[in-house]
Amino acid sequence: MSLLPHFIVKLDAVCHNYRLIKKFVGGSQTAAVVKNNAYGVGAMQVAKILYEQENCRIFFVAYATEGAEIRPFVPDATIYLLNGFCRQDVEIIKKYNLIPVLSSMEQIKNWEDCQMNSSPAIQVETGLNRLGVTYAQIEQMSPEMRHHFSLVLSHLACADEPQNSLNKKQRENLKKIQELFPKSMLSLSASDGIGLGKNYHFDVVRAGAFMYGLPVCPALEKERKTVVNAYAKILQIKELKKGDGVGYNSLFIAQKACKVAAIGVGYGDGLFRSLSGKGRVFFRNENKNYAAPIVGQISMDITMCDVSDVPPAALATQKAYLFSDTYNLNDMGQDAGSISYEVLSALGRGQRWLREMS
Amino acid sequence: MSLLPHFIVKLDAVCHNYRLIKKFVGGSQTAAVVKNNAYGVGAMQVAKILYEQENCRIFFVAYATEGAEIRPFVPDATIYLLNGFCRQDVEIIKKYNLIPVLSSMEQIKNWEDCQMNSSPAIQVETGLNRLGVTYAQIEQMSPEMRHHFSLVLSHLACADEPQNSLNKKQRENLKKIQELFPKSMLSLSASDGIGLGKNYHFDVVRAGAFMYGLPVCPALEKERKTVVNAYAKILQIKELKKGDGVGYNSLFIAQKACKVAAIGVGYGDGLFRSLSGKGRVFFRNENKNYAAPIVGQISMDITMCDVSDVPPAALATQKAYLFSDTYNLNDMGQDAGSISYEVLSALGRGQRWLREMS
Repeated sequence: MSLLPHFIVKLDAVCHNYRLIKKFVGGSQTAAVVKNNAYGVGAMQVAKILYEQENCRIFFVAYATEGAEIRPFVPDATIYLLNGFCRQDVEIIKKYNLIPVLSSMEQIKNWEDCQMNSSPAIQVETGLNRLGVTYAQIEQMSPEMRHHFSLVLSHLACADEPQNSLNKKQRENLKKIQELFPKSMLSLSASDGIGLGKNYHFDVVRAGAFMYGLPVCPALEKERKTVVNAYAKILQIKELKKGDGVGYNSLFIAQKACKVAAIGVGYGDGLFRSLSGKGRVFFRNENKNYAAPIVGQISMDITMCDVSDVPPAALATQKAYLFSDTYNLNDMGQDAGSISYEVLSALGRGQRWLREMS
Repeated sequence: MSLLPHFIVKLDAVCHNYRLIKKFVGGSQTAAVVKNNAYGVGAMQVAKILYEQENCRIFFVAYATEGAEIRPFVPDATIYLLNGFCRQDVEIIKKYNLIPVLSSMEQIKNWEDCQMNSSPAIQVETGLNRLGVTYAQIEQMSPEMRHHFSLVLSHLACADEPQNSLNKKQRENLKKIQELFPKSMLSLSASDGIGLGKNYHFDVVRAGAFMYGLPVCPALEKERKTVVNAYAKILQIKELKKGDGVGYNSLFIAQKACKVAAIGVGYGDGLFRSLSGKGRVFFRNENKNYAAPIVGQISMDITMCDVSDVPPAALATQKAYLFSDTYNLNDMGQDAGSISYEVLSALGRGQRWLREMS
């Protein structure tokens, strides 16, 4: 077993979760969001398997460079660029046949100036106030201009709060805009919006977070499969006596004799330092998970955990898992004062993980 | 200008900061800590320039793979592996001539079993209770065995609290251990420990954080140079009216008409989401920095900031810098509820940055 921490991705679980969404949304197309290296899971591998095994033909990334990276694996799929484009991107957009999502009148003008032949997508403002062209601006476009857009896209601000009235308002705003784009496909919902129901699906839904195993779609939660786990190796086990301090600034002081393990993972690998004294890791034996609380400050390369209550056989595996059946990315996100999306992408950017994909 | 965020590293500032430490510690050797990709700054580039221009001949990394990566740039330097070794690492250790820091009797036994010829280093427990062999264990070694170790290393727990009595205690513990290793070099202090004074320097100091521009050594703060900055491009500017909500869950509600910019950087690039509504970014014109508060939730690829008070000429640059003369990595660390070390290594792991090194 290597000393390096291990990052384990189950690509068959990505496919499973993708199929759940596809079945749930019925007639709408299910696009895959693979920006930010597929939230850290691995964009090329995810794009390849969804294209080959699940017949996915629409992909979303943020930047042209991300689109170029997946193109070899999804030869005839449509690839949208959520963060738009700039003039420097024109060559790569042409070479890899990418479609920017234009979000401002300035970008639309740039696109026209560049005399591109393909039909771009447009992002419209419905209530998120992040990127998007306003209704007033759309009204001022000529119908011919509006016909250029193959896809009209917007994004929900509060899809994780089903009762929030802004959801309905954004949907109504999009319906109103729809009248001005009679020939275009429409897309509103990402993973959490999909759960709001049929009215929110339109022509294309954008599967991302749920596909990567984040528990963000209550309607499908029961069938969701876990995609990512990770483990770190025990570097050393120490017996502490009452009063011994552990780690930087002795954040943890042993209240009684105990046994702590130093494991080879730290915030340098994307494990949030805010989990110090709050999170936990897990040792396994015979399909049982034994929790070991994180004690003391997480440091750049090392995390300490209290293994006093972990049975020797589980400890003998030397593997401290970051997640268990009862502790998922949502739980870690909460313990870290963050959210599952950020926790996953932080871990996924780690450069020292040995990556195992199956 | 590309749409992608930019990460700017000044290698000459790394050299400058290294020289400050070297001068400050006088007779002790100044080793460079380049683990975790040099805290995100770039291990190969940092190792190369310190070796070639500053005559640095001792480097510290955490893992054998990290040592192998820098070896071509520091051909005859000593490279220590802070997280030790396992049997799988033996080949790479031999091939790249790396020296593990052994921290437990188990690792020492492994090392002997592997019949390695080179002299390892040993990490000793003085009060951090992370990794390290205890005094009692050392006493039980034969003098011949102790002579094998080229370097005896320990690490301070509270070097950022100069008044903490644990500093002195750790130093005294190391002095006591020193008697048992009459032939070995000693090392105790990293960047923050160096500032505690001559008594803490021993034979080798380990320069890391301060070298990368983190303000962690008050004694040298005045002369410290900034190493890292970063900027993101404006994707769109929106005029908001009173009552408009911005971003996920409308975390920000405009209290009056204002102007917000969406910039192309997010937590997917390592910008802590906990800076939402707390941090700021900076626009520049004629050497002046104009702050724009971060408003609403930072999302994976996009951050919103209030640019109402930014002069048009500064806005026209389209570049939102993450740091300014009056806002450094410590400030961002505090705003994020973290520390400069974590903030730097999180940004430095971003895979979408265009990296500029000079």
